[in-house]
Amino acid sequence: MKLLVVGSVAFDAIETPFGKTDKILGGAATYITLASSVLGVDSGIVSVVGGDFPQADLDMLTGRNINIEGIEIVKDGKTFFWSGKYHNDLNSRDTLVTEVNVLEHFDPKIPDSMQDAEVLLLGNLHPGVQLSVLEKMKNKPKLVILDTMNFWMDTAWDILMEMIAKTDVISINDEEARQLSGEYSLVKAAQKIHELGPKFVIIKKGEHGALLFHDGKIFSIPALPLEVVFDPTGAGDTFAGGFGAHLAKTENFSFENMKSAIIVGSALASFTVEKFGTERLKEVTNQDLKNRIEEFKNLTSFEVTL
Amino acid sequence: MKLLVVGSVAFDAIETPFGKTDKILGGAATYITLASSVLGVDSGIVSVVGGDFPQADLDMLTGRNINIEGIEIVKDGKTFFWSGKYHNDLNSRDTLVTEVNVLEHFDPKIPDSMQDAEVLLLGNLHPGVQLSVLEKMKNKPKLVILDTMNFWMDTAWDILMEMIAKTDVISINDEEARQLSGEYSLVKAAQKIHELGPKFVIIKKGEHGALLFHDGKIFSIPALPLEVVFDPTGAGDTFAGGFGAHLAKTENFSFENMKSAIIVGSALASFTVEKFGTERLKEVTNQDLKNRIEEFKNLTSFEVTL
Repeated sequence: MKLLVVGSVAFDAIETPFGKTDKILGGAATYITLASSVLGVDSGIVSVVGGDFPQADLDMLTGRNINIEGIEIVKDGKTFFWSGKYHNDLNSRDTLVTEVNVLEHFDPKIPDSMQDAEVLLLGNLHPGVQLSVLEKMKNKPKLVILDTMNFWMDTAWDILMEMIAKTDVISINDEEARQLSGEYSLVKAAQKIHELGPKFVIIKKGEHGALLFHDGKIFSIPALPLEVVFDPTGAGDTFAGGFGAHLAKTENFSFENMKSAIIVGSALASFTVEKFGTERLKEVTNQDLKNRIEEFKNLTSFEVTL
Repeated sequence: MKLLVVGSVAFDAIETPFGKTDKILGGAATYITLASSVLGVDSGIVSVVGGDFPQADLDMLTGRNINIEGIEIVKDGKTFFWSGKYHNDLNSRDTLVTEVNVLEHFDPKIPDSMQDAEVLLLGNLHPGVQLSVLEKMKNKPKLVILDTMNFWMDTAWDILMEMIAKTDVISINDEEARQLSGEYSLVKAAQKIHELGPKFVIIKKGEHGALLFHDGKIFSIPALPLEVVFDPTGAGDTFAGGFGAHLAKTENFSFENMKSAIIVGSALASFTVEKFGTERLKEVTNQDLKNRIEEFKNLTSFEVTL
């Protein structure tokens, strides 16, 4: 199946305890489709960049078989730019600069070549934009995966609710799940979020892993304990990309296969954090991924005989 | 194998968002041996209580085949008492009262009937007391498991280091591991703690589960996601008790079996938090435990085909 990804293609400038970068390639759709390309899934991006966006980066995406017909280039506009500084624990960060630029008036256009995508992954953007993409698809996708954040809960609640009602799988972090549901217990939070629409609820817990809830069942996976987390930027998007791409590739939306998809997403995200930006993710081979999944297996498998 | 447990036998008064208790039975050694009794392991307690300690509680322990010859009763003394109030998230708490009482001059005495215990579980006490127990054992135990806390790092560093050097398995929480090692990354923290002596390092992460480190290998287990955590008191001690008892029962100290022991401990701890104090743990049957372990299996198992 084809994977259609809507989200930012952007510049980031990142500072961590280990160093800092100038403006480098970033954006949710970038990480998502790069993750997808490791699995060899046909994916396409719907996004917008400015005239300042390097042709080399577009070529890099195309070279990885990512359809960029849906990336609008606003010649006299500037690309979305985010700059942030991570604290020593790498679990929290300060945003230094956010220049929305061409994303402010983003009117997504779906190229004909991607109208038949069966899996739609809506990266974190204004829920109104996410909704408009869904409405513009001539064929209703078989699976809608939504990433969102607390900012939209604060500023666009009603339309976010409308978007969530049309979502099959929602992916949010623990604090966002608590805000969205008003429940502290993540089990109760997931129950309330199910009632809003999504049959599958993924709750991301950063260094503590992730949970998947569906129909009274729960799957829990720890994050791979890493000696050094170099740069967490893009980890969540990489996770979503690996997740969505595995589902598109296997064409199976069962709970059991969603568990596999979460492992694939977690494994890919564990590469992303090893270097700045997309640097490490771009190098990952299918064999690297297989080895990392084996590490997850070793990390979590056990037998008990009482 | 026999399991010898050194730790507090105490009174707790607990307040949670769901209610409060008067003085009820508590203490690390109590939870540890009750957990052990679910597995049918021969265990004994070395501790001290005051003349105010109810005979009925002693009888309850004896009735569960727990050897209490090592519980000294100081007739004119008062039993250790702790009172605390949990915050709404149940992850943090305020201590309201700590009355050390008879524990202040605790001079542990190991009854002859427990001198042949092969597994020694040192519950959280002053490291000098823990060390004295080890020195008083005529036969060196085959496995020494140590629980400790940040308070002793702050107040008794040198003797704590001496105790840790003689420890096979140390069990501490994530913040304590960071304090003990001076490392934020738990992988690095575990490496440094290995260098202090323990071949096995368990790092407890509360609602996020636990990690086991040994010889470059890592095992990670999430906590069972619970709809309601009623009272977290004793969860860590129950975990340690289930862990130690499984090892004593199976007489196998390999990494693979330590993984199983961690599952048993986690499963038992998930019962403890369901009611106040020891109430739920006392009811747990071997079949309950098997079912809960099956839930852990379902929670964490996955297959990935790329």
